[in-house]
This record gives sequence, structure tokens and C-alpha cells, in this order.
Amino acid sequence: MQNENMPNFLKKRAFLTPDRTAIYFHDETLTFNELYHRSVKAAGQLQGLGVKKDDYVGVLLKNHLDTVIILFALQLLGVTAVILNNRLTTAELAWQLNDSKTKIVVLEPSLSEVGNALKSSIASLSCVTNNQLFLMKSEVPIIQEEVDLADICTVMYTSGTTGNPKGVMQSYGNHWWNSVGSALNLGFIERDCWLCTVPIFHISGFSILMRGVIYGVPIVLHESFDVEKVLADIKNKQVTIMSVVGTMLSRIVTAIKDEHLPEQFRCMLLGGGPAPLPLLQSCVEKGIPVFQTYGMTETASQIVTLSPEYSLTKLGSAGKPLFPAQLKIELDDGSDAPAGTAGEIVVKGPNITAGYLYRPEATMEKLRDGWLHTGDVGYLDEEGFLYVLDRRSDLIISGGENIYPAELESVLLGHPDVADAGVTGVEDDSWGQVPIAFVVKKDGADVSVEELVDYCMSRLAKYKIPKAVYFTDLLPRNAAKKLLRRKLREWLKEAGLDDENFIN
Amino acid sequence: MQNENMPNFLKKRAFLTPDRTAIYFHDETLTFNELYHRSVKAAGQLQGLGVKKDDYVGVLLKNHLDTVIILFALQLLGVTAVILNNRLTTAELAWQLNDSKTKIVVLEPSLSEVGNALKSSIASLSCVTNNQLFLMKSEVPIIQEEVDLADICTVMYTSGTTGNPKGVMQSYGNHWWNSVGSALNLGFIERDCWLCTVPIFHISGFSILMRGVIYGVPIVLHESFDVEKVLADIKNKQVTIMSVVGTMLSRIVTAIKDEHLPEQFRCMLLGGGPAPLPLLQSCVEKGIPVFQTYGMTETASQIVTLSPEYSLTKLGSAGKPLFPAQLKIELDDGSDAPAGTAGEIVVKGPNITAGYLYRPEATMEKLRDGWLHTGDVGYLDEEGFLYVLDRRSDLIISGGENIYPAELESVLLGHPDVADAGVTGVEDDSWGQVPIAFVVKKDGADVSVEELVDYCMSRLAKYKIPKAVYFTDLLPRNAAKKLLRRKLREWLKEAGLDDENFIN
Repeated sequence: MQNENMPNFLKKRAFLTPDRTAIYFHDETLTFNELYHRSVKAAGQLQGLGVKKDDYVGVLLKNHLDTVIILFALQLLGVTAVILNNRLTTAELAWQLNDSKTKIVVLEPSLSEVGNALKSSIASLSCVTNNQLFLMKSEVPIIQEEVDLADICTVMYTSGTTGNPKGVMQSYGNHWWNSVGSALNLGFIERDCWLCTVPIFHISGFSILMRGVIYGVPIVLHESFDVEKVLADIKNKQVTIMSVVGTMLSRIVTAIKDEHLPEQFRCMLLGGGPAPLPLLQSCVEKGIPVFQTYGMTETASQIVTLSPEYSLTKLGSAGKPLFPAQLKIELDDGSDAPAGTAGEIVVKGPNITAGYLYRPEATMEKLRDGWLHTGDVGYLDEEGFLYVLDRRSDLIISGGENIYPAELESVLLGHPDVADAGVTGVEDDSWGQVPIAFVVKKDGADVSVEELVDYCMSRLAKYKIPKAVYFTDLLPRNAAKKLLRRKLREWLKEAGLDDENFIN
Repeated sequence: MQNENMPNFLKKRAFLTPDRTAIYFHDETLTFNELYHRSVKAAGQLQGLGVKKDDYVGVLLKNHLDTVIILFALQLLGVTAVILNNRLTTAELAWQLNDSKTKIVVLEPSLSEVGNALKSSIASLSCVTNNQLFLMKSEVPIIQEEVDLADICTVMYTSGTTGNPKGVMQSYGNHWWNSVGSALNLGFIERDCWLCTVPIFHISGFSILMRGVIYGVPIVLHESFDVEKVLADIKNKQVTIMSVVGTMLSRIVTAIKDEHLPEQFRCMLLGGGPAPLPLLQSCVEKGIPVFQTYGMTETASQIVTLSPEYSLTKLGSAGKPLFPAQLKIELDDGSDAPAGTAGEIVVKGPNITAGYLYRPEATMEKLRDGWLHTGDVGYLDEEGFLYVLDRRSDLIISGGENIYPAELESVLLGHPDVADAGVTGVEDDSWGQVPIAFVVKKDGADVSVEELVDYCMSRLAKYKIPKAVYFTDLLPRNAAKKLLRRKLREWLKEAGLDDENFIN
């Protein structure tokens, strides 16, 4: 269908506005033309490794200029990037690489040991560091002049209630429509400049790369969130928009003290779960223009955002679905919830994933008639503003990272002394939420909290390790033996938080 | 395919930003919410007339608030609007209504006589004036909550080399992508305000209606171009963007004298054919931010526009194709022209029509592999900027209206005393171009210029009437008897313009 084709995004942008700044990273500044030519060279180097259109290539890289170049090089070749969270353990990474049938991974030099471990567990895998890649001879790459919007640009893994991570397929169209939907809400002007301190391996960061190229505006890329560097660059680089999660915003609010952000700064895009009202209120007091937003890997970032004129009157709401998107609240019987009544948040739109890689059943379960069943709970007010009450009942969001209790539980259950395990999240001042585990020991077993934590440490990314472990005789399960995680949260509330059980 | 569905544009906009101003017309101001509710009421009235989803309804209306309401009412019902140029004669209108199989026309009260004439020539046709419609009882309309981007929103007629007007099918997607492509080039901000003095029955005007709703910014609608009113409203309504053709811009330049346009005014979007360089130069001198653009009914308005940073250095160029679009220059042998070499302008993109209504052959002739062969002549410079040399060799653009010589020729050939006829355009200070006819009388016939003009007057819109008629013994035709219109232009140049033959 002709309507589904568009010019290659980066090539087109470099053609349209070659001399505009594309990216600031440390002391380096690249125009779109320079970014394009460096990406073409990297594409030639990747091609030299045997990478070709429709391949899947793993990317295990931190926020860095090289990462941006490699990601766009893959797009130029028409290759799908399997973007890996570099906080994961080797076991987790191997699982995702196996699952996505990825044969080549580009990784950080600092992770070359991880690379060796991965190679020893996946015989067919090749690993190359970005440094090695950039020293290779560059072939003349076969550049894809057009992209089919239905083609898969990226795969990012996300876990679900079953505990097995699933690869979310994000098409070029998903990223395109997300950028356009965002622009139609936030507006966009030539002098916009987007600060990215969130990880590129998350959709929150990756979507900023795509917007930069689609809009033709510069991004300022930081390796990680450093509040002093953030405040300095907002000023020096004339940043107008920044994406944050609650913990970052909270640190910014503390750091600016009684000062104000520079006048050109127009949007603090706040995602990563419901934000505490006191934080939002101090932003109002300090004149920080917060736009609350709701989205996920499956929606290629934002799908609901609070538009400018309501940022004060609807404080705490995530807003309304972006122009191309639709939203409803579904009750258990499948009917639409009336205003004010909570139910499952269900969304639709051209930014929504076509599904999970190699998992037609999981796809059909979540995507019905084009509607994505998020599992998150919320309600609409009389005017149609969304209030998110709870991310999917089992999801824990810690410092912007998603933690799926089922994944942690299945690791705990793998321990020889554990009979049953249940995980839930608890509020935390620094991280928003942290995971807490409840464990039933096997008869006669005598395992310690420390042993269990060590056991998890070798199998799970650090942010997923439970911050406390409680031993109990029986977990709350319903007749169908489904774990009642809400009950676990009640236990925590009733008992208060026992600091002795916390691991720091 | 799920990706092709979006929420109904106006309904979504009214939901997102109900209280923003949608339109200023004379002393009336409507918010998006008011525009939506008035359109819903009109949709109920149209439904009362038997109009329903997938019908074709003719719209013969001038620039007026009621027209905007009726056009959006049709979109709410999922009805295709056959938008008629109200400068056409009854015979021309009847032809288009017959061709599109339109059974109902909504028209101006001032055109009710035209309506009667149309009804007498098309037995099955019903006509209703907007005033009559708005007095009718409104049913509860069946609102289309979603639009399929492939559905046909509007049909606008355009003629070709054969002389028979063809209905260009413009889908919701065509209008959507055009709006998005324009925004990605011009940028857009909440305080934008678009002045529309061009006809809504042309794509230039209609596309402004769509942008207003998609962007959520107000439009100022004028019944026609009145330079004093334009300058007053740019100031009073804080207009930031205006669409013009060369003749309008020329009058604005004269009228502002040594003044400047207000500071908020950021874009004079200049379409409707290549503009004379002296005009562009005086705009530079007066600080008028001119963005030259190139587009047509088949591309749902702009497809190539000069982006901000090149407005001075590439003066006279139409720019580069908008982000979603592609362009090449094709030589006669079908190969791509090198930079600097003129050839046919060929374009591709999601804003391009799916084809001509009920005319698969004409569609296949113009649209090949998604590339639209415009028939226009131009070249690209080394950097890829388009310079339009000539609209399709036979097209005459007069005050922004397209005149197709073949259509005028076929009317002249219908006169009993005419043996042969050839039409071409000639430069004109007021209108850009005007049509000139060359006529070979039948042996022994003695028809006068006045008789021929009267004959045309009863059959063609006024702007299509030849401004001069020359009698000759033989027309320049090639071996295949194809009329060589370029030769006619040479004759005119050689002979000079003989004012005696001009009709005023």
C-alpha cells in the first residue's frame, strides 16, 4: 500500500536541514548531516559484519553518541534493533537474545566480559564492541531509501504477569505516530531542544532520538541523570523540553531551591507512573511546567498527556489521549466504565505495537480489535481526563524501571529452600517504589534473607532485587490459587514497614 | 488494518481543547466545542434529508461559517463532500454532479436559480440551501466515531489534458498527512492563527480548515480577498500564517507601503504557481516572511515548501519535499534527471490522492508505483531544491484558478462556425496569466470575437473566458496532429500583444 511508505527518516532529515544541530553529547556537537554521514559509515561497517536488511541485531549500549550512530545505522540498513537494558544480568540478556533469535550483538567495551559469557551460553552469537566496529573497514552500505511504516524498527523486552519477558515489536509507524501525536499536543518550534537523561534502551529515551530526527530539533544526550549537569545544560544548551520520571523531578525541585528554570524551558514531560501530588504542587509553586503523561513500551511512549491549558486545573491527571489515539476504561464484564468508576485502561491508536515477537497468543490476549488491554487501573473524570490509579496491579516502577513481581517470584521459587514466593511494591521516597518479597520456606529448610538476596543478585538486574524479604507460613491465594498481591500490600500496611528486613 | 483508523477529527479536537477558538468569521467566534455542536446539529439535519454514511453530497457554497459547519457535519456522518467551485457555469456543475453520481446538493441561497437549472437537467437531483437546511428538524445523527484514513473525505474536480474534469479523491489520510507534513516544516505553536481568504472549495482553502482542527488553532475566515480587511485582521486577530497566491501577495506588498507586518506574523505561504522574482525581492525588502510552496489538488495542497532557513538564499525555489513526501525529476525516457536538468516533476507520499473518481485508467496513467506524474516541468539544483519552471505545459493559472486549455478548446470547437481552436496562457500583471484563444473558422463562416466570447460565457466560468481571440488559417500541430501550444506562445511573443483583441 503506497500510503505506508515514507522516506528513510534520518536521510530525509539530513536532506531537509543538513546544517541544523542534531545532537550535543559531552563536548561534541553533530549536525544532522554529520550524524547521517557517521551513521552511513557505521552502516557500512555493520554490513561488513554480514548484517543485512530484516536481520535482528542486539544493542547493549549505554547513552552515548556512538549508540545513537549505531541505532540510526541499523535503520539505514533496514535492520531491527533488539535494544537490551544494560542493567540486566547475563542470564536475563541471554534469555532475550535467544528469544529474539539475535545472532549479533553490539556492546559496550566495558561489557565485553558479559559478551564473553553470552557467547559461551549461545554458541551462534557474535559480539562486537562499538569501538571494534568503528575501526573496521566500511563497505558501501545498501541504504533503505524508504521505510515501510509497518516494518519493525525496534524490539524492547517487557515482562508480564507470566514472568517471561516478551519482545515488544515497535514499528517505524509506531515511532512516527508517537512523535506526531506528541507534537500535536506539545506544539513544536524550530528552537526546541530536548534533553535526554533517561536511558536510550527504554522507549522514553529512544523516542527522544526519533523525535529529534522527525522534528529536526537538537537533543542533548546525557549518559545518566545528574541534577547539576541537567541544570547547567538547560541553561547552556537552551533546552526547552525534558523527559523525567518522578525521582528525577524530585531531585530537580530540590536542587533549584528558590531559583526558576530559564524562560525558554517550556515542558517537563513526566512519565513513569503516577506522581505524588505534593511533588506536583511544589512544581506549580516553582513555575516548573510539568506535563504528566502515561505510556508504556507497547505504546511507543506517551499515549495520554495533559495538554498545556489543563496543567493546573487537572493536577494529578495524565490528561487525554493524544490526537491519533483513543482510550476507554473497561469493567470486568467488558463494558465501558462510567465517569468516575475505575477499571482497566484500554487504548487504541497507530502508535500501538503490532504485538509481541513470536508470541501470537500473548498478542491476541492483549490486543483485541486494535485495543490494547494495559492491565493498568484508572478512571476518567466527567470531562474525560484520565487518572491512573495503579499501574497493572502487579507492576512495580522503581526509578523509572519496570519490575514485574512474577519474574522475581519465579527466581525465588527456583531456590531449593523456597516453597512459595510473592512479591509486591512499596512506596519509597527515593525510587517511587521498591520490591518486597514474601517467602514460604520448604519444610525443614533454614535459608536466610541474605542467602536469598545473593541468589537473586546472580540472576536479576540490581534494581529488581527485593529491598526486604519477609518469611511467612502461607501466601494469600484465591480459590484458583492466584496470588492476591493486593493482600500482600495490606499486610505491609497493617504491619508497618519493618526496617530490620530492609537491605541497603 | 488497525493503523489506518483514527478518531473523528473534529470530535476529537472538541474533546481535547473544547474552549480554544476554532474560527473567526465576521463578528462571530466559535470555539471547537461550539463548532462541534453546530456541526452535530447540521449532521442531524442532513440525516433528516436521507443523507447517510458513504453517500456523496455536493457542496456549492462560498467561504462562510455555515460552509465550515456543513463540511464538518458531512465528516461526522462519514459522507464524502463533492466540493464544487461556485464560479462554474450550470453546465459545468451539472457535468461534475452527473459524473460523481451526486444526488443531493447543498447550495447558497444566492445560487438557488442555479439549483433549479441543475434540477431541470438532472432529474434525480435534490437541492437544498444552507438556510433551508438549518431550519429543518435535526435527527440524532449517527456520528462516525472513527475515520478510516483510506476513506474519501472530499472530491474536487480538476481538468487535464483531455479537457474532461476528473474528480480527485482526497482521503482523510491525504488531508491528515498534508497537515502533519506542513507542521513538521513550518512548526506550529498554540498561538498560531491561520487567515483563510482563498476559496474553501479549493484545496488551498479546505486544507486550512483541516489544519485548524488537527492542530487546534483558530482560523480567520474571509469571504474573499480584501487587502484592507486582511491587514486589519492580521493585526486584530493576531494572525501568524496566511495562504496566498501571487496576485494577493502583490496587492499586500502595495498596500502596506513602508509599513511592516506585525511581529507575530510568521509565515506567508505562497502557492498557485511560480511567483515573479521582483515580487519575492520586494517581500525580502519589506521583511515579509514568504514561504514558496508547490502543490495541487492531487497532493491535498503543499507537497514542496521552502523551509525557513532557506527563504533568502534559495529565493524563487519552491523548496524541498515535506518530510513524508518524495520527489524526482523524470526525463522523457523515464530516467532521473541530473541536477540542473529540467524534466517532469514526479512526487510520492501519503498525502497523494488514491486516484480519480470512477476513472481507473486516468488514475493508472498519472499514478505509477505510487508516483504521481504531475505534468509540471522543473529541475532540482545541486542541493535538491526544486525550481518549478512551468506548470503542466498546458495549464494556465489565473488568479489562483486553474484553467485547462483543452476544456476551453472543446467548448470553442462546439461552436458551429469553428473548425479548429487552440488556447494558451499569456502573462498578465493582475492575474498572473490569462487565457488566449486561436481559432480557425470553417470555410465561409463569418463569426465575430464577440459571438465566440458570448458562446463561451454561457458554458464556462468567467475566469476561463479567453481574454483575446485571434483568428488564423491553421494551427500548429505535429505529425500526430497534437496541438503545439508552445508554438502558440511563440506566435504571441513574436507578434506582441495586440490590445485590440483583448476583451475586458
